[in-house]
Amino acid sequence: MDKYTIRNTLPTDYQRVISVMIDWWNGRDLRYMLSKIFFIHFCNTSFIVEAEDQLLAFLVGFMSQTDDNVGYIHFVGVHPEFRKKGIGRELYSQFFNKCKLNKRRIIKSCTSPVNKLSIAFHQRMGFLIETGDGVIDGMPVTLNYLGVNAPKVLFRLEI
Amino acid sequence: MDKYTIRNTLPTDYQRVISVMIDWWNGRDLRYMLSKIFFIHFCNTSFIVEAEDQLLAFLVGFMSQTDDNVGYIHFVGVHPEFRKKGIGRELYSQFFNKCKLNKRRIIKSCTSPVNKLSIAFHQRMGFLIETGDGVIDGMPVTLNYLGVNAPKVLFRLEI
Repeated sequence: MDKYTIRNTLPTDYQRVISVMIDWWNGRDLRYMLSKIFFIHFCNTSFIVEAEDQLLAFLVGFMSQTDDNVGYIHFVGVHPEFRKKGIGRELYSQFFNKCKLNKRRIIKSCTSPVNKLSIAFHQRMGFLIETGDGVIDGMPVTLNYLGVNAPKVLFRLEI
Repeated sequence: MDKYTIRNTLPTDYQRVISVMIDWWNGRDLRYMLSKIFFIHFCNTSFIVEAEDQLLAFLVGFMSQTDDNVGYIHFVGVHPEFRKKGIGRELYSQFFNKCKLNKRRIIKSCTSPVNKLSIAFHQRMGFLIETGDGVIDGMPVTLNYLGVNAPKVLFRLEI
């Protein structure tokens, strides 16, 4: 792996991230889920990975304001050509460190049951899958977690 | 004005709020901007107004995690038949109190230049409009605040 740098996000990163999402998500258009608001108000817990000027990965997360023991990972993407090189693990590690600084001991995240890569990644990272109220492709899901007919696999990790 | 109650939002409020938005926004479909994530992780700074079982209004806000002096109001809606009765002002007052408890002295929000009701409301509440980098309908706007071709009127109030 060539050298790369990790830094906190800036509002100006939003357009770069949005512009790669359809490609990185294999044609799925999830851009509507990633409001620029996150790039304005949650910069300290969100990260960009770059090599020279190329965007390699990003993580958008925040500290839950409902549960002061929880850090939430909202969106993570890694450039398809730079996967399986430890970049995702490094991003999560940076986020976990921020959570510890903020006295958060539980990390939560979720993904769609169709996203097998994300499910496998979270399992490798030690996340447990919450029981939920349904099963899709053999995977426990929470059927209406982010809205009606939007079943999600919910992840939870104690750090 | 009949009696109404104000309480913090719950995740289960999301579907009710989403179901009224097109109607309350006069046909504009802004539902994609209001992720359920806000109803899960920002409950303590978000509010629901009800009279018996009827939804009268809501406010979704949070404490900025980039700027620890800022509270941000993300979305506010009042039932069209219950406007001009002080409900919006009461919601903002509740949010301001939360901001003071969290040592926030600056409230920020934004709206589309087309939303004259929202602009007038914020001006009555004492918000200043940030200078921005453009003008639409005589109103200063920030052209790419929430994305390219999504100009917004930015509000700021010191409390």
